[in-house]
Parts: sequence; C-alpha cells; structure tokens
Amino acid sequence: MSEFESLLKSYQARINHKLEGLLPMNDTLLSRAMRYSVLNGGKRLRPMLVYLIGELSDTESEYLDTLACSVELIHCYSLIHDDLPAMDDDDLRRGNPTTHKKFDEATAILAGDALQPLAFELITSIETSDRNKVEMIRSLAKACGHLGMVGGQIKDIHSQNIFNMESLDLMHSEKTGSLIEASIETSGILSGLSKNDIESLKSYGAKIGLAFQIQDDIIDIESPSYVSGKDQGSDITKDKTTYPSLVGLDESRMRAKELANQAKKILLPITKNTDNLIKLADYIVSRKA
Amino acid sequence: MSEFESLLKSYQARINHKLEGLLPMNDTLLSRAMRYSVLNGGKRLRPMLVYLIGELSDTESEYLDTLACSVELIHCYSLIHDDLPAMDDDDLRRGNPTTHKKFDEATAILAGDALQPLAFELITSIETSDRNKVEMIRSLAKACGHLGMVGGQIKDIHSQNIFNMESLDLMHSEKTGSLIEASIETSGILSGLSKNDIESLKSYGAKIGLAFQIQDDIIDIESPSYVSGKDQGSDITKDKTTYPSLVGLDESRMRAKELANQAKKILLPITKNTDNLIKLADYIVSRKA
Repeated sequence: MSEFESLLKSYQARINHKLEGLLPMNDTLLSRAMRYSVLNGGKRLRPMLVYLIGELSDTESEYLDTLACSVELIHCYSLIHDDLPAMDDDDLRRGNPTTHKKFDEATAILAGDALQPLAFELITSIETSDRNKVEMIRSLAKACGHLGMVGGQIKDIHSQNIFNMESLDLMHSEKTGSLIEASIETSGILSGLSKNDIESLKSYGAKIGLAFQIQDDIIDIESPSYVSGKDQGSDITKDKTTYPSLVGLDESRMRAKELANQAKKILLPITKNTDNLIKLADYIVSRKA
Repeated sequence: MSEFESLLKSYQARINHKLEGLLPMNDTLLSRAMRYSVLNGGKRLRPMLVYLIGELSDTESEYLDTLACSVELIHCYSLIHDDLPAMDDDDLRRGNPTTHKKFDEATAILAGDALQPLAFELITSIETSDRNKVEMIRSLAKACGHLGMVGGQIKDIHSQNIFNMESLDLMHSEKTGSLIEASIETSGILSGLSKNDIESLKSYGAKIGLAFQIQDDIIDIESPSYVSGKDQGSDITKDKTTYPSLVGLDESRMRAKELANQAKKILLPITKNTDNLIKLADYIVSRKA
C-alpha cells in the first residue's frame, strides 16, 4: 500500500470513529437504521476531501471532523433513498443488504429523512464564526436541493432518456458533483482559504467527481459483486445510461484519465502543497472498487 | 367570519403568494411536483404562528415571510413522505391526489427530499444577524430530526402499539409539536423576543399542537371527505391509535378544550398583547376541517 493509500485509510478510520460517536445510540428502530446505513464501511470520499482541503492550510483534522461527518451523513442519506424500490431498487450496498432490505421501506425513508437535518444541525455546532456556519450551511443546502443532488437523482432514474455525453455529464455533476464540490467549498470556508482558491478547488472537484462516476460505471461492469459490493452489471440490468453504454469501455477509461489530468492541471496556480489532491485524482481513476 | 378568521385568511393568502414566488418555476418533473405539493391550499398553521409570534413585538410581516415559507416547506415535505405507500398510503391530501398519486413514488420522495434543504437555504438568506440565522437553523434542524418530527413519524406508523395517552402524546409532540414549537422559537428569535418569552410561547405551542392533533382525529371521524380533504375515517381503516380510539369522542373533545385552556393560561405572564394567540387556541379546537 502506498503512503497515500495509508493516509486515506487513516482518514477513513478517523471518520468512521467520529461518525460512530455522533450518531444516536438509543435502541430505537430509527437510530438502528441510521447507524446501520452510515456505519457500513463506505469509501468516505467526501470526508476525505474535507480533510485534504484542510491540509492545504494546515488545519487540524480535529477542527474538521464535524464538517466531515456532516457531508458524509448527507451522502449516506442520499444512498438510502437512491436504493429504495421506487428508485434503483437495489438489494446490496457495500456488500450488505440495503437499508430497506435490512429494515423496511418506511424505516429506510425515515432514516434518510433524519440524517439530512442532523447534517445541518452538526454544522451549527462547529467552533467557528457564525458567518462561516451560515456560508457552509448555504453551500451544503444548495448542493442537496433541486438544482443539486436531488435534481440529478431524478434525471438518473429516468436516465434511459439520456442519449449523449453532455446530458450524462450534467446529470452526474448534479447528482454526485454537487456534494463533492460542497465538501470542498465548506472545508475551504472552514479552513479560511481564499475565494479564488476555493473556486479553483471546486472546479477540481467537478472533474474528479465525473472521473469518479465513470470509474464507478467501469467497476460495475468489470468487478464481481464481492469486490464492488453491488450486484455485478446492475446498471445494465436496470437499463441505465452509463458512460460505457454510451461510448464503450475503452473510451470511458480514456475519458476518466483525461478528467483526472484536467483536475490536476487546475491545481497548478494554487500556491500550496497540493500533492495529496494530485494523488487523489490518480487514485480515483485507478481504483478497482 | 370573525375578525380573527379574516386575519388568518389574510395570512394564508400572504404565505401562499410568497411560496408561489419562491418555489422553482422551471418546467421539470421535480419542480412541478414541488409546486404541486406545496401550493395545494394547506391550513398554513406554522406560517401563521410565525406571523402571530412576530406580531407580539410588532415585527413587520415582510420581515417574517421567508421564515414563514421555510417552516411550511418542512411541513409540506413531511406530508409528502407521510402519505407514501410505505407509510400511510394515502390517496387524498387536502382534497387532491397525494403527490405520489399525481406523479409517482420516486418523484414524491424526491420532491420531499428537495423541499427540506430549500427550507434551510432560505433561512441563510433572511436579513438578520448570522447569530440569529444559526440559532434558527439549529432550532429547525433539531425539530426535523430523529428526536423530533421523524422520530414521531416512525412511532406513528407503528401506532397500533400505542396503548396509552402518554405514549400517544409523546408521539404527537414529536411528530407535530416539534415543528410547531420550532416555528414559534425561530419567529421569536427573528423578532428579538426574550428567552423567557420564547420558552413560554413554546409551551403554549406544545399545548395547541396536541389540541390541534386531537381535533384532527375528531375531524377524521366526523367530517366527510369533501370537508376534511381526506378519506373519512381513514385513521380507523388504517388501525391507527387515535385519541378517540383510546378514550372516545367525548373525552377527546374535552381534552382538546382543556389543552387550549392550558395554552391560554401559559400566555398570562407575557406582558405583550397575546389576544390573537388566545384566539388561535380557541380556533384550533373549534374548527371543523
């Protein structure tokens, strides 16, 4: 394992521990469903971005923990709802039964519904200026809304109507990119980065977000379920428009690499040590799961 | 119509107009579903509370509009999800097809998912101090979470396990009371009321919230669908535990009146003109729809 991968692992362990401590512990159906959905070993890309952006200005991880949890809770809520029978109807997530399979549909909907406001509540508790809190909440709320994540998700469930790369890019930039960019923006705000740097880093985020998605589509085809944690080829079964279905596997691979390269170029004008962000871009398009 | 009822009507018209202007207008499925779910003539109790609390310190309605919209969006999102097949499986809401009936289940889930963050985003745009915004967001987020609205909703869908008044009160105080109290608290914060007054007013809110719910249960039994906007007796069909099912209609009526009286008593120490809040308490337990 490379030094960078060890770093990612350590951030993963850190965020898992923090999430564990912050989710409700009482033994109710709702709390159990919330914990189950969040503490199931995700990749934690968004918290990692929070930490890696913080590194740029030597912000202590401790200072970023709550924000990192907040963006991950939003991500987890969106996964629970995406998996529902009325949406993607997925039985497996990260190798385990999806929340509605493990519990029931109502409980899954409500676990998602409870994770979302918890994310906003958490931000109000971060030790920073009220100005920063308001800016972070605005960024995150926009990312979650009809012009962001939810707008992308409704396009995704009708993705059989997507016939070109531009529309597919737009769908993913709303569905996945919005929250990735918000993770970067909020961490930039909390770490006191300049507006210019934050804007560049968001563009970087947009590129790696798309690259991440393309790689996900490739993994869906190439990896058996015990590696991907999902049913192999589930996108195909569901008649989803994906990058491979649109332009083939080879061109998808090339596009992902190209996006990672574009992302790295965006970092050039930033006069901070962006080594780890460069490594992240490479990591995203080389991962197998 | 009494002068007070005219006032309520004028606030209703005001909030409907404001909501109309603030919801997304673009012609997407998601935006249409969001508009449909919100602009269907609800009672607008929570916005009214925002305005009536503001009146106590002569706060201009204009200053309260955005907050009033915000709490109503949360309420509307919760109704969409409560009506889903996996939850109450309701076909009618306010006399119209429920959102999942008018559109489809996925669209309904997502319309709710998009209304929630919009409510938080709106609060960040209110012209007040950042301190106030953070406090309002914290109050609202708590009300929406696992210890508030969502915690109550999961108890409600298993309400056949509720066998006594105390548990039924707790469920409703979480499910409905939380947001009612948050509407009062946030309006109190925005209007600059004292902490003491806000606490008293929240207790008032808890009482009228329960009274409102009991009256709803009574209306469900007594009013035909064209009055209540729901299927008559739908609680009974669904084997829900309600106040009438637990203690009968007469005692339910008495309890609602008693709660309204308790609410009015709580207002006594407040050295402001609380006439309209007194009238609201009476109105809530005398309404027929």
